[in-house]
Amino acid sequence: MASAAGEPKKIIIDTDPGIDDAMAIFLALRSPEVEVIGLTTIYGNVYTTLATRNALHLLEVADRTDIPVAEGSHVTITKGTKLRVADFVHGADGLGNQNFPPPEGKPIDMSATDFLVEQANLYPGKVTVVALGPLTNIALAIQQDPSFVKNIGQIVLLGGAFAVNGNVNPAAEANIFGDPDAADIVFTSGADVLAVGINVTHQVVLTGVYLHDPTAMLAAINPSLITYVEGAVRVQTNGITRGLTLLYNKQKRFAEITEWSNQPSVKVAVTVDAPAVLKLVMKRLMEC
Amino acid sequence: MASAAGEPKKIIIDTDPGIDDAMAIFLALRSPEVEVIGLTTIYGNVYTTLATRNALHLLEVADRTDIPVAEGSHVTITKGTKLRVADFVHGADGLGNQNFPPPEGKPIDMSATDFLVEQANLYPGKVTVVALGPLTNIALAIQQDPSFVKNIGQIVLLGGAFAVNGNVNPAAEANIFGDPDAADIVFTSGADVLAVGINVTHQVVLTGVYLHDPTAMLAAINPSLITYVEGAVRVQTNGITRGLTLLYNKQKRFAEITEWSNQPSVKVAVTVDAPAVLKLVMKRLMEC
Repeated sequence: MASAAGEPKKIIIDTDPGIDDAMAIFLALRSPEVEVIGLTTIYGNVYTTLATRNALHLLEVADRTDIPVAEGSHVTITKGTKLRVADFVHGADGLGNQNFPPPEGKPIDMSATDFLVEQANLYPGKVTVVALGPLTNIALAIQQDPSFVKNIGQIVLLGGAFAVNGNVNPAAEANIFGDPDAADIVFTSGADVLAVGINVTHQVVLTGVYLHDPTAMLAAINPSLITYVEGAVRVQTNGITRGLTLLYNKQKRFAEITEWSNQPSVKVAVTVDAPAVLKLVMKRLMEC
Repeated sequence: MASAAGEPKKIIIDTDPGIDDAMAIFLALRSPEVEVIGLTTIYGNVYTTLATRNALHLLEVADRTDIPVAEGSHVTITKGTKLRVADFVHGADGLGNQNFPPPEGKPIDMSATDFLVEQANLYPGKVTVVALGPLTNIALAIQQDPSFVKNIGQIVLLGGAFAVNGNVNPAAEANIFGDPDAADIVFTSGADVLAVGINVTHQVVLTGVYLHDPTAMLAAINPSLITYVEGAVRVQTNGITRGLTLLYNKQKRFAEITEWSNQPSVKVAVTVDAPAVLKLVMKRLMEC
């Protein structure tokens, strides 16, 4: 279980399973480079309640009920925003309508936000959050504890469409569109953020299926599989391009102060070693 | 004065001179492929009143006072929007503070909008508008006369930043930012629109100076100098990415109806033959 650094990287997976979330979770559980210390749940592919049920189910299937599941927010950070759940993609139960039995386990008696804050304080600089859904839980943790952005190691997020069309509409990618205000809070928080957008995950295709979540997971597990640029990212939170992610690489100068000026830099993935990702996914998920 | 098609293309230049507008205007006046049938003025590099004065001055310098100048809108199409004038780029008088004498001529007794509508009706399908500033006058013509979009031949506009950062801020290019509502009206009007954005004009550099306006002019004069893609373009009109231009190429399918669905296609320039543009600009402006 030892990585090159000697100790596996502690990760919390913030997830809305979701078929490809399930792949990403199994991938993490089978990767010696990382130690999954918890799952936090969020709406996205399904509503949060079902995401929690699915997370518990997946851990039971993997025989890893030692890993705690903390239930996350049921609503976006901005009150009154209509929740968008993509069950037309993943089936009503989020896992392809397989009618699996209800899980035996229960989520822990702590919210996802409290769990994120607790773990970041417990292992300062050591915990990576891999966020596979809308960023509500992470934004709430940032708002709840001012030291969270310093204590959390890195936030690797699946989200955004950088200089390409989105997948909800031409402007927006689904996870950012799910809670644009939360995303803007995360991008401008000053935390060490790595965004893996669909401009990158669309390069990783397995017989017609995009491996969005597994690619983001592998970016956390093995950063050498991607390259990235750095700059300030802001999210448009209203209007027809609501959910649009816009990167400013801090090279170009403007005559006036802009909404990107003086914002912290984050990392935005730009290329991925797709053959290596596919090989690793197949190897770790298919081999016994 | 004959082009390959036998007859020079009639063009109206909608302009906010502006040093590079001046280059574009002189370029048009020296190009046998086109016949400049009028200038309409708009704020942008300078306020509209000064744009009119500068347009008259440039025509006097070129000894072409036979060409009418129609004064355009002094305000954006959306009331209450603060006018943004880039005199920090072009000097307080827009032409580099050369203290030239006031022009002898006057604008015609007709608004830019009325003139655009009149000329489109007079020569249906034959008039190209080359729009070098914010798109207020063109949007007003579209609103004033429902047949304008059919009667106008083409609208070649200098505007937008497609999948690249803007030049006002990371989201927006200056001409679109000057009146985002007007731009959205033009892009969704159904007229034959060719957008030449800074993603293209930044490829045309003359000893450190970008030839934005001359490049847009040459796209009207000789379309073979550029390549373009087609798709629906919408403009974000509020929030931090106000003025952002977003192209949807109509290839990707979305699960839901979007703000780009059922919108007409426009042309968006993607490449330019920069050496040929530079050669043509030098040849036509420098040779006597």
